[in-house]
Amino acid sequence: MTDGDEQRLARVALTWLTEPGTRAVHRLVDGVGPTGALQRLIRGDVPDQTLRSAIAARLTAGDPYAVAEAALARADRLGARVVIPEDEEWPSPVDALTRLAVSNPQRKVDRETAPPLCLWARGGWPVGEALERSVAVVGSRAATSYGVHIATELSYGLAEREWTVVSGGAYGIDAAAHRGALTAGGVTVAVLACGLDRPYPVSNTALFQQIADTGLLLSEWPPGAEPLRHRFLIRNRVIAAATRGTVLVEAAARSGATQTLRRALAVGRRAMVVPGPVTSAMSVGAHELLRDEEDARLVTGVPHVLEEIGRIGADLAPPARGPQRPRDQLDDDAARVLEAVPGRGFIGPDSLAARAGVDVRTALRKLSLLESLGLLLRRDGAYALRPTPRTAAKPGSE
Amino acid sequence: MTDGDEQRLARVALTWLTEPGTRAVHRLVDGVGPTGALQRLIRGDVPDQTLRSAIAARLTAGDPYAVAEAALARADRLGARVVIPEDEEWPSPVDALTRLAVSNPQRKVDRETAPPLCLWARGGWPVGEALERSVAVVGSRAATSYGVHIATELSYGLAEREWTVVSGGAYGIDAAAHRGALTAGGVTVAVLACGLDRPYPVSNTALFQQIADTGLLLSEWPPGAEPLRHRFLIRNRVIAAATRGTVLVEAAARSGATQTLRRALAVGRRAMVVPGPVTSAMSVGAHELLRDEEDARLVTGVPHVLEEIGRIGADLAPPARGPQRPRDQLDDDAARVLEAVPGRGFIGPDSLAARAGVDVRTALRKLSLLESLGLLLRRDGAYALRPTPRTAAKPGSE
Repeated sequence: MTDGDEQRLARVALTWLTEPGTRAVHRLVDGVGPTGALQRLIRGDVPDQTLRSAIAARLTAGDPYAVAEAALARADRLGARVVIPEDEEWPSPVDALTRLAVSNPQRKVDRETAPPLCLWARGGWPVGEALERSVAVVGSRAATSYGVHIATELSYGLAEREWTVVSGGAYGIDAAAHRGALTAGGVTVAVLACGLDRPYPVSNTALFQQIADTGLLLSEWPPGAEPLRHRFLIRNRVIAAATRGTVLVEAAARSGATQTLRRALAVGRRAMVVPGPVTSAMSVGAHELLRDEEDARLVTGVPHVLEEIGRIGADLAPPARGPQRPRDQLDDDAARVLEAVPGRGFIGPDSLAARAGVDVRTALRKLSLLESLGLLLRRDGAYALRPTPRTAAKPGSE
Repeated sequence: MTDGDEQRLARVALTWLTEPGTRAVHRLVDGVGPTGALQRLIRGDVPDQTLRSAIAARLTAGDPYAVAEAALARADRLGARVVIPEDEEWPSPVDALTRLAVSNPQRKVDRETAPPLCLWARGGWPVGEALERSVAVVGSRAATSYGVHIATELSYGLAEREWTVVSGGAYGIDAAAHRGALTAGGVTVAVLACGLDRPYPVSNTALFQQIADTGLLLSEWPPGAEPLRHRFLIRNRVIAAATRGTVLVEAAARSGATQTLRRALAVGRRAMVVPGPVTSAMSVGAHELLRDEEDARLVTGVPHVLEEIGRIGADLAPPARGPQRPRDQLDDDAARVLEAVPGRGFIGPDSLAARAGVDVRTALRKLSLLESLGLLLRRDGAYALRPTPRTAAKPGSE
């Protein structure tokens, strides 16, 4: 077994041993790596008493290594794979979850919001690529025909403009969002809260098959994992972080979908809400969000959504007020990386990291961002400045 | 003819000679009084060429004094009266229009926003009293059944809680607003854009009669004035300024009702918008406002509206964040006037103005504000500190 395989196995085992999102586990992995972290957890070398007990209980159910091996074999038979942060296809935006802080966390699910340790994937798309230009469309399971209509239209329009539509695969708004994107021949990603061998709900089986055929099914949980109630809330943070923004279509008061939107806000993504008739109980959560969250933006259709999610990129509709160029929005690291790219020719991430004075991991993340902003070209893993302006508004016309 | 009668006649003549809202006329009245201003206008002693021509044209149609006398006689036969700023029943909140500044005024109606020179009134209520606790409910004439339902419910609920509902007497949302208030046995005020002898639209005649019987019909225009198109927009500023806040229920893009709401914002009143289905053309204007105007607040029902309009007063629903006392919201003049009220006993406005070091007019305005905030008591035109703190449940229980 190579070192990479060992890391992969350890991450799978860790996800089985503790629920995804557990901050203590994530910190341990960051400190001593996945295999080191796994060994310490198995030894019971964890300061947190509750976590230690939970792990001890889990260990009585099986050997983590054996369970992980079995999960990998099962995934293989299913045509699924496990993706880890070291893989090229890892969707780096989810790493932003390290800085997700929900104000006044009252429940465990609000505190334990670490990035995924691994993602199970089924479908032809490299995960990172499928999610690069993506927007989440979420809402109530008990949607009204109004909500289903809106979600379908919205997703159809976004998919037509080559945005990936991400949702949770549930009844109602989620299913309408996936279907709208599929109808447009676009890419759609369902992020599930259970094993990919048993996508939930069962009655959406045909839909899941279609999604896997043309888009992606994703999950943090290994094959065999059950869709437990609390897992949906844990899962929501991935939908919020993996996308540029989340659109809430219909939600009852305090629904799970409103939680996804609050997470999107907490992690610095665009949060958008479609209003509805005030006479509808299914719009109460949407209106609550628009009243409570200053940064939640009312949207009524595709142009509004594009205006929000395209703000950092190239889809900016009619220019807002004064020209705003992608470059103006770069953080310090990204600006340094961009400045370090030579005037002509391609450069590899390692040399670039050295020139920019940042670590390679940071360089890779920022390169991916700069590329998605249309400022850089990538070829065979190396980068160059994009010579001609990409859009009408001429962002990045260096 | 007494001096007061002369002032009144001059104000009526001025309103006939120039359209209400004309800033130059208002400034002149402020400087030399209504009779002086009228004489100067008749002499053509006006720097503005356009205004001078307009007046000259009007003067060929009749003698302003004779026209004003006739209008007063006509009003008298109709059971209507003219109210001027010197009258006790004058609704002082409309004077806030002196500081209304619409950003980027493009049309005359956006620049000429001076307070009314006089108000024609029909109905038993003293104008100021009827408007003291008032909220405007406005919207589209071509309302949908959704909008009519919402406007009716909202106005019913507000009237039930003893808020006066103000609107423009038009078809659709306006009529629904008046009817909702009437059904609750409450007070409703229609601010018209034509003479009170010919309320428009004619098909609302029975409604206007009901309003006059239990509430008020108001207009800046003398009897006989026609409901010209531009007058509706001039009128809107009065609806915006006379009330504590305006609720927009349904509006197409760029409708007159959205203009009323922007005016409410510009003059420092609460601006509230009821969202609707994004599939409805009649909600486009409402959603535009919620997107464009940071201070426009989404409301879904009576409790939300009470929270907004009661913010300065006593109807604050569940206390927002941290206790906020009426006193904290006073401007400098109001605070000085309040401080000048003696610890015990009543004091008249003149003595109080002297103690506070403000002019009597300012003192009177601030006293009326402080009284409506529940900080002062009034008896026979003199004021005293209200001894016990006023509670949420007992507005106006003096």
